[in-house]
Amino acid sequence: MSRVRVHNLFISLDGYSAGTYVTEAEPIGKARVLFGDFDDRVIEDVHRVDEPITADRIFTSTWGQGIGAEIKGRRKFGPQTGPWGDDDWRGWWGDAPPFRTPVVVLTHHERAPLAFDNGTVFHFVNAEPAEALAFARDLADGGDIRLGGGPSTVRQFLQADLVDFLHLATVPVVLGEGESIWPGCSGLEERFDVETLVSASGRTHRLFNRR
Amino acid sequence: MSRVRVHNLFISLDGYSAGTYVTEAEPIGKARVLFGDFDDRVIEDVHRVDEPITADRIFTSTWGQGIGAEIKGRRKFGPQTGPWGDDDWRGWWGDAPPFRTPVVVLTHHERAPLAFDNGTVFHFVNAEPAEALAFARDLADGGDIRLGGGPSTVRQFLQADLVDFLHLATVPVVLGEGESIWPGCSGLEERFDVETLVSASGRTHRLFNRR
Repeated sequence: MSRVRVHNLFISLDGYSAGTYVTEAEPIGKARVLFGDFDDRVIEDVHRVDEPITADRIFTSTWGQGIGAEIKGRRKFGPQTGPWGDDDWRGWWGDAPPFRTPVVVLTHHERAPLAFDNGTVFHFVNAEPAEALAFARDLADGGDIRLGGGPSTVRQFLQADLVDFLHLATVPVVLGEGESIWPGCSGLEERFDVETLVSASGRTHRLFNRR
Repeated sequence: MSRVRVHNLFISLDGYSAGTYVTEAEPIGKARVLFGDFDDRVIEDVHRVDEPITADRIFTSTWGQGIGAEIKGRRKFGPQTGPWGDDDWRGWWGDAPPFRTPVVVLTHHERAPLAFDNGTVFHFVNAEPAEALAFARDLADGGDIRLGGGPSTVRQFLQADLVDFLHLATVPVVLGEGESIWPGCSGLEERFDVETLVSASGRTHRLFNRR
């Protein structure tokens, strides 16, 4: 069984997971504060960070287990909008994007795939969620599909009932504005079993498993 | 930094993690009840089990992250005691032990290493904890060392202050007798930061990180 999984979606008390705009310097806009001391290491296995192995780290370290492909929105690849320009933008990550699998980037502006030596290959696809998922599954070699955000992409897949697992980490900060997964998702709890744990940092981890 | 880590040590309310004896049919004796619905899959990554991704599964799935070698007591390799006989015992796991790294088996009766195609190699060593750890680190190629039990082996390493991380899962059952990690470990909380979370199953997960 290949599942569709969302990991490490950090969310403010008022429900926002990314800023209303992103720039090259601020990949998730003002929502950067949600990550706190995680910095850019929210996806790392526990042994890759020279810090205590806390519950927060254990929860976030499952990000890569058994993933065969990722699907994400265009903003999670770069800050540009509209037709692709002539710049040499190759994503937020430099020469070694951490994915090491095919990554389907949802965009109205398709372009040729972009491949890296470490196994990461970005595919730029103009598709609705179900169609994008079928495309990703073809690339995933039987592995699970990770839905990599941002919030609006997760929201669209939730509305289409295409998500099997969702890990939310609520952080006790108030952002005031931004992008949220919740609009149009009322009654979500009727489709999922929800388990809630609180870590010593004050983060609340919620695990949604589709029934 | 190569850490010494204990993962998935299940413990009863009265403090026992294994039975007082083991047999070929009962590898941890009467303490089998501690594992409940985990069966033999307590070490699996979350995608390898076709069940909901619960907090219990997330905690236990970190077992393999970044491990370069394991150290364990002889009972965790087999039920025999005394000098090795002529049987063809190759461990509890059949042809593919799940470790895929060197494994140091502590025993008063040394013997030649035993290698498997999947990368698991058992080394049978008569050594005190510090000496065994130095031997394992030489084999681990920079990876972390997992201390694989049983309880008496973990206890000896705790007493020698050689453990950096310890994950205990307390299960609300009462065993009445068995092996425990606690004798001789009073004041352990002074050497470790302890984080406690309770999962929906009723298991209590405690993460000890050495200060």
